[in-house]
Amino acid sequence: MKKKLNIGMIGYGFMGRTHSNAFRTAPNFFDLPYEPVLKTVCARNAEKAKGFADQWGYESVETDWRAVVESKDIDVVDIASPNDTHHEIAIAAAKAGKMVMCEKPLGRNPKESEEMTAAVEAAGVPNMVWYNYRRVPAVTLAKQLIDEGRLGRIFHYRTVFLQDWTISADLPQGGAGLWRLDASVSGSGVTGDLLAHNIDTAMWLNGQIEEVTALTETFIKTRKHSLTGEDQPVTIDDASLFLARFSNGSLATFEATRYARGHKALYTFEINGEKGSLKWDLHDLHRLEYFEYSPEGKLRGWKSIHITDSDHPYMSHWWVPGLQIGYEHTFVHQAADFITAVGEGKSAAPTFRDALKTDYVTDAVLSSAKSRQWVKAKTV
Amino acid sequence: MKKKLNIGMIGYGFMGRTHSNAFRTAPNFFDLPYEPVLKTVCARNAEKAKGFADQWGYESVETDWRAVVESKDIDVVDIASPNDTHHEIAIAAAKAGKMVMCEKPLGRNPKESEEMTAAVEAAGVPNMVWYNYRRVPAVTLAKQLIDEGRLGRIFHYRTVFLQDWTISADLPQGGAGLWRLDASVSGSGVTGDLLAHNIDTAMWLNGQIEEVTALTETFIKTRKHSLTGEDQPVTIDDASLFLARFSNGSLATFEATRYARGHKALYTFEINGEKGSLKWDLHDLHRLEYFEYSPEGKLRGWKSIHITDSDHPYMSHWWVPGLQIGYEHTFVHQAADFITAVGEGKSAAPTFRDALKTDYVTDAVLSSAKSRQWVKAKTV
Amino acid sequence: MKKKLNIGMIGYGFMGRTHSNAFRTAPNFFDLPYEPVLKTVCARNAEKAKGFADQWGYESVETDWRAVVESKDIDVVDIASPNDTHHEIAIAAAKAGKMVMCEKPLGRNPKESEEMTAAVEAAGVPNMVWYNYRRVPAVTLAKQLIDEGRLGRIFHYRTVFLQDWTISADLPQGGAGLWRLDASVSGSGVTGDLLAHNIDTAMWLNGQIEEVTALTETFIKTRKHSLTGEDQPVTIDDASLFLARFSNGSLATFEATRYARGHKALYTFEINGEKGSLKWDLHDLHRLEYFEYSPEGKLRGWKSIHITDSDHPYMSHWWVPGLQIGYEHTFVHQAADFITAVGEGKSAAPTFRDALKTDYVTDAVLSSAKSRQWVKAKTV
Amino acid sequence: MKKKLNIGMIGYGFMGRTHSNAFRTAPNFFDLPYEPVLKTVCARNAEKAKGFADQWGYESVETDWRAVVESKDIDVVDIASPNDTHHEIAIAAAKAGKMVMCEKPLGRNPKESEEMTAAVEAAGVPNMVWYNYRRVPAVTLAKQLIDEGRLGRIFHYRTVFLQDWTISADLPQGGAGLWRLDASVSGSGVTGDLLAHNIDTAMWLNGQIEEVTALTETFIKTRKHSLTGEDQPVTIDDASLFLARFSNGSLATFEATRYARGHKALYTFEINGEKGSLKWDLHDLHRLEYFEYSPEGKLRGWKSIHITDSDHPYMSHWWVPGLQIGYEHTFVHQAADFITAVGEGKSAAPTFRDALKTDYVTDAVLSSAKSRQWVKAKTV
Repeated sequence: MKKKLNIGMIGYGFMGRTHSNAFRTAPNFFDLPYEPVLKTVCARNAEKAKGFADQWGYESVETDWRAVVESKDIDVVDIASPNDTHHEIAIAAAKAGKMVMCEKPLGRNPKESEEMTAAVEAAGVPNMVWYNYRRVPAVTLAKQLIDEGRLGRIFHYRTVFLQDWTISADLPQGGAGLWRLDASVSGSGVTGDLLAHNIDTAMWLNGQIEEVTALTETFIKTRKHSLTGEDQPVTIDDASLFLARFSNGSLATFEATRYARGHKALYTFEINGEKGSLKWDLHDLHRLEYFEYSPEGKLRGWKSIHITDSDHPYMSHWWVPGLQIGYEHTFVHQAADFITAVGEGKSAAPTFRDALKTDYVTDAVLSSAKSRQWVKAKTV
Repeated sequence: MKKKLNIGMIGYGFMGRTHSNAFRTAPNFFDLPYEPVLKTVCARNAEKAKGFADQWGYESVETDWRAVVESKDIDVVDIASPNDTHHEIAIAAAKAGKMVMCEKPLGRNPKESEEMTAAVEAAGVPNMVWYNYRRVPAVTLAKQLIDEGRLGRIFHYRTVFLQDWTISADLPQGGAGLWRLDASVSGSGVTGDLLAHNIDTAMWLNGQIEEVTALTETFIKTRKHSLTGEDQPVTIDDASLFLARFSNGSLATFEATRYARGHKALYTFEINGEKGSLKWDLHDLHRLEYFEYSPEGKLRGWKSIHITDSDHPYMSHWWVPGLQIGYEHTFVHQAADFITAVGEGKSAAPTFRDALKTDYVTDAVLSSAKSRQWVKAKTV
Repeated sequence: MKKKLNIGMIGYGFMGRTHSNAFRTAPNFFDLPYEPVLKTVCARNAEKAKGFADQWGYESVETDWRAVVESKDIDVVDIASPNDTHHEIAIAAAKAGKMVMCEKPLGRNPKESEEMTAAVEAAGVPNMVWYNYRRVPAVTLAKQLIDEGRLGRIFHYRTVFLQDWTISADLPQGGAGLWRLDASVSGSGVTGDLLAHNIDTAMWLNGQIEEVTALTETFIKTRKHSLTGEDQPVTIDDASLFLARFSNGSLATFEATRYARGHKALYTFEINGEKGSLKWDLHDLHRLEYFEYSPEGKLRGWKSIHITDSDHPYMSHWWVPGLQIGYEHTFVHQAADFITAVGEGKSAAPTFRDALKTDYVTDAVLSSAKSRQWVKAKTV
Repeated sequence: MKKKLNIGMIGYGFMGRTHSNAFRTAPNFFDLPYEPVLKTVCARNAEKAKGFADQWGYESVETDWRAVVESKDIDVVDIASPNDTHHEIAIAAAKAGKMVMCEKPLGRNPKESEEMTAAVEAAGVPNMVWYNYRRVPAVTLAKQLIDEGRLGRIFHYRTVFLQDWTISADLPQGGAGLWRLDASVSGSGVTGDLLAHNIDTAMWLNGQIEEVTALTETFIKTRKHSLTGEDQPVTIDDASLFLARFSNGSLATFEATRYARGHKALYTFEINGEKGSLKWDLHDLHRLEYFEYSPEGKLRGWKSIHITDSDHPYMSHWWVPGLQIGYEHTFVHQAADFITAVGEGKSAAPTFRDALKTDYVTDAVLSSAKSRQWVKAKTV
C-alpha cells in the first residue's frame, strides 16, 4: 500500500482544474512513489468550493487558505489562485513546512519572487512552478536533441505567443474571470502571462538571456470594469515584443500578444544551429519539426516527427504510435515528475529559483519598454 | 448523491485501459445522471487482473467472466477482451439483464453479430459498440455540417486506414499481444480491425453502402507462431481495398493496410459534395479541413478549423480555445454519452444493430475479394 | 551556329500555348543540339491562327494541317489539337517522314493508338507523347529514388486526380473550349483526360498494371450543347475509379473526377515500400514528401523536400535554392529532353509505344466499368 | 506592328538572367504597348558577355557601360550589376535621358540613393526598382485585400528572410559570385540584401515605418578572400533583426539571416488586423493564408488560398486553376507593368523614390544596431 501525498489546492479556476486532473490521472499512467490524494480545495466562495470538490472528489473544502497551510493533513500546498495571492500563500506554506507548488508566474514582480524563493529554500521544502510547456513531449524531445549536441552552435531563436481574445473593445476588465486584464492582480499583461512561458522554455533550451530591447503596447486604452461598470484605464500590456542576445551568442526575437486575429494560443518556437534546427507549435503540440544538416543535399528537408512513439518522452505511458495526447497531459507529466522527485526528497524543475530567473527577464523587458534602452537581465 | 452505475470490465489490454480511463474521467468533465464505479475487472490471469485493478482502482477482480455477468453488483458488462469472446459474453450478459458495451467489431462474422444483436434487443437492455472515432469532436462536427446540408448532394467519399507495424517478416503471430494476427481469434485482419472503423464512420456520415468490389492481400505468407515457435500460414488479410457505391449515388474508395511505411495510424476521410467538402485525419485529429463553395472565387480555399472552441462538439467540457485534446478523449465522450442515454433508459449509438450493419459490409468486402465479383451488402 | 529544328504546331489552344512556350524557353535554359524554331502554326480559323502566331512569334500560319505535314520546311509535327485529330495527323506526319510529338492521350481508343504507334515505328521517326508530369522535378526525383532501390519491395500505390469544374449543371457541353465533355471527340471523359496521367506516372514508377476492377459514373446525365442549345445526353464519364494489381504484386487505388469540390487540379500519388515511402501532389508540385525507414525510431518522420536545389532533376538550369518553378516548366523540360534525344537520332520517353501501354489500361478500366468484372490490361 | 523598346542590360549574373527572361517572356503572356527588344548586354568580360548574348538572344554586346548609356539605340538602361555600380550608371543613364530600371537595393547608402532619385526625377524619365516580390500574385492579392479594408485596423506585422548558405566557415568572401559578402561592394550584408525586401513589402502593405531598435551580428569574423586567398575580416552583417513601430500604430518584428539552418530563401510575412489576418511565405509562393473574422465561431479557421485562378492578380495571363507559377514570373509581371506604364509615359512602382524610403529604413536599422538606441527612419 502506497503512502499518501495529501494535496491542498488553493483556487478552483482554469488552473485548479488542470492541476486537479493531473493529480487524479497521474497514478493511472505512471508508477509513483506516493499516491496523491485530493484532500482539500480552498476558495473564498464556499458554494463554489463545494461544487468544485464534488466535481473532482476533494475530501473537504476550506474558504481560508491559512487553514489549508496550517492543516496537519496537508503535505503539499498547490497555489492555483490569481497572481496577487502567490506571494503570501507560498511564504506561509513554506514556513509551515509544506511542499509548495505554484502556478506561473511566480510573483507579480522580482521582489515578490525573490522572497518566495528565499522562503522555500530556507524551509528546504520541495517546490516547483507550473511552467507546463516543458513537459509537452515534443518540447522535452527538443531539449534532449539539443543536449545531445545535434544542433551544434546555436545562431538563432525565435518565439511567439499569439492570441486574439481581447481584440473587442467591448470586453470588460477586472473581476473573477478577467483578473488577467488587471495589472494590480496579475502584475503585467501578456509579458507575465504569455511571454513568461516563451522565456522559461527558451532559457531551458538555449541558456541565459543576457540583454533585451523591448516594445510594449496597450491597444485599447480604456475598458469598462466588470464590477463597477465604469470605464477605467487599461493597466496591462496588450502586446510585448523584444530582441535578445543569449549568453551563448545567439540572437532572438520574442513576441506575445492578444491581438493577433486568427490565433487562439499559438505558442511557437524555432531554434537554428550549425548542424540542425527545430520548430514546434502549440496548435499541433504532438509534432516536432526537425531539420538535420547532411551532406546528402538532394534529400535535405524538414521532417515532421509525430510524437506518439514509446521512445518519445513520456509517451510509453500513454497509447500506441499514431495516437496523440493533448494539453492537459503536460500537467499530468509535471505532477508525476514532482511526485517522483518528492520520493527522493527533491524539488522538480522548474523550481522557484528557475522561475525567478524568468521573472528577472520579464522585468528587464518591462523596464526596457519603459526606458527605450537595452537592459541586462539580472541573473541568479 | 448520485446513483452508482457499476461497471464490470472484461479484459485488461489496450482497450481495457481506454475504457477504464473513460469511466474514471467522464464524471470530472461531464454532468452525468449516474456515477460510474469501476466495480470489477475480469481476466483469466488473476495476477494480471490484480495489477490492473490496483492501477485503475477497481474494487474487485474475477478470473471467470461468468461471475461478472451473474453478479448482482454489476449494472454494465463492458467487453474489452479479444474478438472471439464477444459473442458468448454479450449474449450471456444480455440474458442476465445487464447493459452491454462491446469493443468493435461486434462479432467475428455476421452470424455472431446477428445473434448478439438479437440477444440485447430481446432483453431490452441499453447497448453500445465502441466505434470511438465518431466522438472525435472534428468527426462529430463533420456529421453536424453534413446534416445541416452544408455539403449538398454528395459525389465522393474516400477513406484509408494506414499502418506499418507488420512489415517486418520477423514479427511473430498469435499469443497474447498478437491475437489480431490470428483470424480464428480476430475473425479477419485489417478488414475487421481497421476498415470496420472506416465503414462505421462512412455510413454514419454518408448513409448505406450498397455494393462493393474488393481486393485483399496477405503480403507475408507465413510467420512464426509466438507460442509454438513454428512457421505457420498467416490467416489474416494484411491489406484490404474496395470500391463502393452508396445508396445516395456517391462513389467511394476504401483502403486499409498494415504495410504503408511511414504511417502509424493514419485514418483519414474526405467527402465531396456539391456545395462543400470536408477532410479529416487521425494524425491531427483536432483539425477539420473545410471547403465551402462560394461565388467569391478569389477567396476560395480550404479552411483548417482547429477544433478547440467551446462551440465545437464536446469541447465546452475541456479547456480553452487553442488547447487540443487527444485520442483517449473519444472514449470519455462515448462513456459520457452512454451514461447519459442510460439515464433515459436508452442505448447510445452506435448500437449493436448499427454495428451489425458495418459487419455486413465487411462481410461483403471479404466475400467480394474471394469471388472477384461485385457484392451487395446485406442491410438491416 | 546551331542547326535549326523547325516546328509545325497543330492547334492553338491551351496545349498549343504550353508547347509553344516550351520551345521558346528551352534554349535559354538548356544547352541543346538544335535551335527550335516556331515555324508554322496551324488552325482551321485563319484569324485565330494569325493572332496566335503574332503572340508567340510563329513565322507563318496554315489552316490545313496537311500543308504542315507535307511542308519541306517542317522537321517536327507537334499535335496539340483535340483528341479526334491525333490519329489521322500522326500517321500522315510519320508517313511524310516527320518527327512526331503528340498531346496525350495518344488515340481515342487502343485501335487508333496501335495504328499510330505502328506508323511512327515503321517510319523510324523520333516520337514522343506529352505526358508532362514525368518532368516535374519532384516526380523525376521520385523515379530516381525508386530506381536506386530506396523504397525496397513495393506494397501500395494510391493516386487521384481531382477537379471540380463541371459540378454546375448549367455548364454546357461540346464546341470549341468544351470538346473534353464530348466522347466522340475526346474518346472518354476523365478516364482519358485525367486518369491517363495517373496511369502513365504509375507505370513509369511502379511497372505494369496487370488487372483492374473499375467503377465509372456520369453524375449529370444531360447538358445543353453549346452550339445547338439543345439538351443532349452526356456521353463521357464524370468520375472513374479502379483498384489494380501491379505485376510486382503491389496493390493500388486510382480515382479521377471533376466533381471533387474544392480541388482544382489535385493530382497526387503515394507509393509505399518496405524501406520507404514517397508522396507528391500537383498543388505543391515543387515538394516531395519522403519517409525513410530507419532504426532510429524517435526521429522517424516524413520529410518535406523543397525541390529547388541544383542537385535536383532539371533544377541546375533554373534559379537558386528556395526559388520554385511552376507548371509550364514541365513542358520546357520535355521539349529539352526531346531535342536532346533528337540530337542522337532517338525518341524521348514516353514514346508512342509507352503511351499505347497507358491506353491499354484506360481501355481495361472502361471495359471493367461496363462489364463489372476484373479485366486484365493488354501489354505491348 | 508594335513599337520597339530597346533594352540595354548591364550585368549578366543571376539578376541579368531573371531580367532577360522577363523581357523575353512578357510579350507572350501580356498585351503590351511596346515590344521589348534585347538589344545590348554589357559586361566587362567580353567573352562572358558574348556567351550571355547568345544564350538570351541579345543583338550586340558591350564591355563599357558608358557605351550603352550613350547609345542612340537604347531606350531603357537596366542595371543588374553589383550594388557598387548602381549609383554611377543610374545617374549617367538618367542624364542621357534613358529610362532606368535598377536592381535593389537602390544605392549602397541613402546618399547614393538620394542622388540617384534626384537624377531620374530631374531627367523626368520613367524608372523602377526591381523589388520583385510585390508581384508575386499572392502578395499583390494581400495588398488588394488590405486596401479593400478587409483586415481593419492593423495591430501586428512580422516578417523574416531566412537563409543558410553562409554557415560554413570555409566559404570564402569577395570576388565574382561572392560580392554580396563584401560590404564595400554591397553596402551591407543581409540588411540590404534580404531585409530590404521585407521592408519594401511591409511599407507597401502597411505604410511608413517610424522607428526601429535593431541588433546585427557577424557570426564568422574572418573569411578567406576568394581572390587573395588571405584571411580577412568579414565586413558585412550576417544577421539583422529589428523591432519597429509603424505610423499606423502597429508593431513589428523583422529578421533576416543567412544562418538559419534548413531555410533556403524563406521570406515570410504575417499581418494581423482587427477583422482578419494574412500570411505568406516564399517557399510556397503560390498560396496565401487568410483568416477572416466571423461571428460564426465554430467554422473559423485559416484558409489556404491556392493563387492560380483567373481572378487572382496576373493569373488570367497564365494557365488554368490549380497550375502554379514560379519565382521568375514575378519579374515577368514587373517587366510587363513597367512597359505598360511606359506606354503612358509613367514610372512603375516601386520607383526610385519608393526605394529610397526603404533605404532610409535600412539605414536606420544599421544605425540603431551601432548606437543601441531607437532610431527614427527618415521619410521622403
